[in-house]
Amino acid sequence: MSSEEQIEKDKFYMGHALMLAEEAFKKGEVPVGAVIVCRDKIIARAYNLTEALIDVTAHAEMQAITMSANELGGKYLQDCTLYVTVEPCVMCAGALGWAQIRRVVYGCSDEKRGFSAFAPQALHKRTIVTKGVREEECKLLMQQFFKQRR
Amino acid sequence: MSSEEQIEKDKFYMGHALMLAEEAFKKGEVPVGAVIVCRDKIIARAYNLTEALIDVTAHAEMQAITMSANELGGKYLQDCTLYVTVEPCVMCAGALGWAQIRRVVYGCSDEKRGFSAFAPQALHKRTIVTKGVREEECKLLMQQFFKQRR
Repeated sequence: MSSEEQIEKDKFYMGHALMLAEEAFKKGEVPVGAVIVCRDKIIARAYNLTEALIDVTAHAEMQAITMSANELGGKYLQDCTLYVTVEPCVMCAGALGWAQIRRVVYGCSDEKRGFSAFAPQALHKRTIVTKGVREEECKLLMQQFFKQRR
Repeated sequence: MSSEEQIEKDKFYMGHALMLAEEAFKKGEVPVGAVIVCRDKIIARAYNLTEALIDVTAHAEMQAITMSANELGGKYLQDCTLYVTVEPCVMCAGALGWAQIRRVVYGCSDEKRGFSAFAPQALHKRTIVTKGVREEECKLLMQQFFKQRR
């Protein structure tokens, strides 16, 4: 696959994650959406449910990891790519590290809670990270959410 | 409460976490057990279930956090203490940070995966950490498990 094809594919799957983030927004949840793709198939779709489930562990990524393992029948995600609208936090990066996920693609950075500032070694050493895919759309959704809440 | 009383109490609750770790051991899981105590009452008991549930997120601490939030009806654990036999990993420390737990007490350190080396700021800044409670028993259980597996 050429790098142009890869970029188009990344934008496409991030579009799915964005739709899920919009669902979260509508439900009063911090708008983060995620999909996990394995061999060109979406095997998990999730959005943040921390308020609805009253559970800090119910981030989009955590749910998507659990769903993917169920789907694949194994706990390692070495053939999978996570697309998530916002940079994963320390908790989610730790989980992605345990899952040995192949690739992590995220939209906008999270300077306050993102793993890259607080736990840069949390992911598996072979995991490839791509950031900034559809960054503005992902960021705008977060900004709108927090503006509304003020 | 005097510091002697606190030490005795910590040993007592770590005893419960140790019993749970032994259950994990019997079931072929990495032997880590955890309890969460709120105002002198155990509100959650859990042990590592990553193999049984085929889920890297099923650490004892993660389950205990979710259970405690259910029990309390709120996602913050500011009046709670976690007792866990082994130092929490980056994922679990991140979750404990989100939950703003009051205190974390652990038995033995985990040099390879423990949060203190890889994400020292993962916990909430007001969380108090106590380590080394019944350390030898906690460590022995882990050593026996990995020896058996070799």
